[in-house]
Amino acid sequence: MTATTFDAPTVIRIKRDGGALSDAAIDWVIDAYTHGRVADEQMSALLMAIFLRGMTGAEIARWTAAMVASGQRMDFSHLRHDGRPLALVDKHSTGGVGDKITIPLVPVVMACGGAVPQAAGRGLGHTGGTLDKLESIPGFTAELSRNHIRQQLRDLGAAIFAAGELAPADRKIYALRDVTGTTESLPLIASSVMSKKIAEGTRALVLDCKVGAGAFLKTEAESRELARTMVELGADAGLVTRALLTDMDTPLGRAVGNAIEVAESMEVLAGGGPADVVELTLALAAEMLDAAGLDGVDPAQTLRDGTAMDSFRELVAAQGGDLMQPLPIGAHSETITAPRGGTMEHIDAMAVGLAVWRLGAGRSLPGERVQYGAGLHIHRRPGEPVAAGEALFTLYTETPQRFTAALAELDGGWAVGDTAPARRPLIIDRITP
Amino acid sequence: MTATTFDAPTVIRIKRDGGALSDAAIDWVIDAYTHGRVADEQMSALLMAIFLRGMTGAEIARWTAAMVASGQRMDFSHLRHDGRPLALVDKHSTGGVGDKITIPLVPVVMACGGAVPQAAGRGLGHTGGTLDKLESIPGFTAELSRNHIRQQLRDLGAAIFAAGELAPADRKIYALRDVTGTTESLPLIASSVMSKKIAEGTRALVLDCKVGAGAFLKTEAESRELARTMVELGADAGLVTRALLTDMDTPLGRAVGNAIEVAESMEVLAGGGPADVVELTLALAAEMLDAAGLDGVDPAQTLRDGTAMDSFRELVAAQGGDLMQPLPIGAHSETITAPRGGTMEHIDAMAVGLAVWRLGAGRSLPGERVQYGAGLHIHRRPGEPVAAGEALFTLYTETPQRFTAALAELDGGWAVGDTAPARRPLIIDRITP
Repeated sequence: MTATTFDAPTVIRIKRDGGALSDAAIDWVIDAYTHGRVADEQMSALLMAIFLRGMTGAEIARWTAAMVASGQRMDFSHLRHDGRPLALVDKHSTGGVGDKITIPLVPVVMACGGAVPQAAGRGLGHTGGTLDKLESIPGFTAELSRNHIRQQLRDLGAAIFAAGELAPADRKIYALRDVTGTTESLPLIASSVMSKKIAEGTRALVLDCKVGAGAFLKTEAESRELARTMVELGADAGLVTRALLTDMDTPLGRAVGNAIEVAESMEVLAGGGPADVVELTLALAAEMLDAAGLDGVDPAQTLRDGTAMDSFRELVAAQGGDLMQPLPIGAHSETITAPRGGTMEHIDAMAVGLAVWRLGAGRSLPGERVQYGAGLHIHRRPGEPVAAGEALFTLYTETPQRFTAALAELDGGWAVGDTAPARRPLIIDRITP
Repeated sequence: MTATTFDAPTVIRIKRDGGALSDAAIDWVIDAYTHGRVADEQMSALLMAIFLRGMTGAEIARWTAAMVASGQRMDFSHLRHDGRPLALVDKHSTGGVGDKITIPLVPVVMACGGAVPQAAGRGLGHTGGTLDKLESIPGFTAELSRNHIRQQLRDLGAAIFAAGELAPADRKIYALRDVTGTTESLPLIASSVMSKKIAEGTRALVLDCKVGAGAFLKTEAESRELARTMVELGADAGLVTRALLTDMDTPLGRAVGNAIEVAESMEVLAGGGPADVVELTLALAAEMLDAAGLDGVDPAQTLRDGTAMDSFRELVAAQGGDLMQPLPIGAHSETITAPRGGTMEHIDAMAVGLAVWRLGAGRSLPGERVQYGAGLHIHRRPGEPVAAGEALFTLYTETPQRFTAALAELDGGWAVGDTAPARRPLIIDRITP
């Protein structure tokens, strides 16, 4: 065996010129970058070359494995509850607007006997992050020790924690992609998602791959290819993996922001809430339970009988959250009213996502604080009747000077007219290995 | 007028997606990078996007102008010698192996009445830098004050100085390109060269654009396109500009390295030296004198009558160099002998350039020290007869452990056989606006 030595410019040039990186080159560059021997400027040049030249399936698989290997892979296979191994299963969404689904979904799966070890992320750009939403609950923390995660998973059936030291190479690369215009790349998205999910120690995984105006990848073909790529990566790593392709042309539900999405999630857990949020929650729950080998359970029943709400309260309490305190809501609001009567014809997910980001619910730089009370309420969803002068959207923020930019983002992002929009199916397709 | 605001990811995305950058976007990104408001990792992603997507002529022109404007542009138009304005003219080579031409050429032009304000560079990669070569003369310095440059230019007719504060944006970008695999890009090469040459204050410029194995751009078509682009950039900036396309398949002359190339240059200045070095020196001198409007002078005469050598001695002395001291030569040498008799069929410029770089004559990182005594002597040039066992190459270094890597680079880079190589013209074409 001879030690193969690489240097960053050589590795960059291979990809720049359209070649495929060898396993050894990928292992070297990920390890060297993790340990600071490849500089940020070199990795960002490589990421742009990957963005523009693409990667083969074999390259994506190795890149993902190298990112997993850059840190520890968690392992919960030895844990027992009532003498049985845990039914470990998780869900990941490629990111949407108003996509609070994790919040009602995890308690439903808990109530059905699943165990969810969820390494979650914070928001960046126009899509919110589950952690930002949950952290709007006073006291809630996602900074859990390994021991705490293990115990909570065993005793309650879920832990939602900051990815932290999992796949540290991915954390560095993710931050770099955001500032260098290299986010919307299929190989980079797939490897980023799957490295964290493989490292978090789940045994089964359901992916919610978004399609439409509010998704990171713009075409259904690209989203489908991303879903297929991630399902293969999961299967290769020994995870039972499948994906749903779901619609993200219009925001999910009526609430977009941080605390405002927690409030809507609790409506769902109480047996109500917007139909689309309920539908997607139950569809993903059914997939997760099936992937985890749990049959004979009815997720919808847990919303009706209150057991999902009980699980949610236990989960929040175990992570320090206090649901007796009121959820924050921006002190300043601005309402958009209907210029005429008719039907809400469409609401563009990207426009709403950017407006809410401008209100302070998201961040433009990693590490920035978000406003928990910033958000937007949709009074009339696409297809609903509108009377002239009635409220269509209410915007909330702590910093009223943000309204101008938020309203500008929303401008042209919705329309009231005379035509009811064609009904799009929420769940477009299902993808298995 | 409204202030246009940009951010780096947006500018990067435009180029990434194949669009053209507006004048305002280019001005913003160059200024923001110069002042540290765009980070290295963002610029390197943009450079890779430029590498892979290219730039329009208008973009290259604006990018060049923005780099010139990132620092001061020198102006010698007010200087007078014997009551007349100076005949300001410079030459730039795109970089070759054994390309010491500046060293005999500048004194020839001085002796013919030209004034050469040359901002020169240090070597990086397989091609040497004029400054590294000249600095091998004990005491020689290229770190000249503006005042010193002005006086020397007026009184002697030349100054060869480190680009230093000229086009600081280019200096930062050049260093970045080298470590991020984005050197061999036509728009980036053209704008880098021309920003320094425009800022240095010359009025006329002759470009020596290399074609062949040892050139940065590999095909004649690319080199031709680079030449045309640079000639246009010069003309747009008000410089009398023209280019020669010259052969760089095989090294120039018999000496490749630092001090060893100064020694060969002095042979030329003494009226001898390798024919190809003399030919190219005189061809470039004729172009420079013509571009500067100096007619009725014979550059060849200055080599015969010793006036060019006198000018060289004056120039070196004015910049602190002591030609009475011996030029350094590596203490360790290694000679390659002919395995058989015949004719030297070819010597590959890239192989020789890399071998000399491995011997310590060049640097792998900006700021690294080079060995002035490292280099290679070519005993038999292509087309010359070879007897079995006689010396073909002698390699010099201060660090004998470097021989292994240098010999490996040279391996396969030359051949002795029975066929005399076809004679290639040294000067392939001439390009004017």
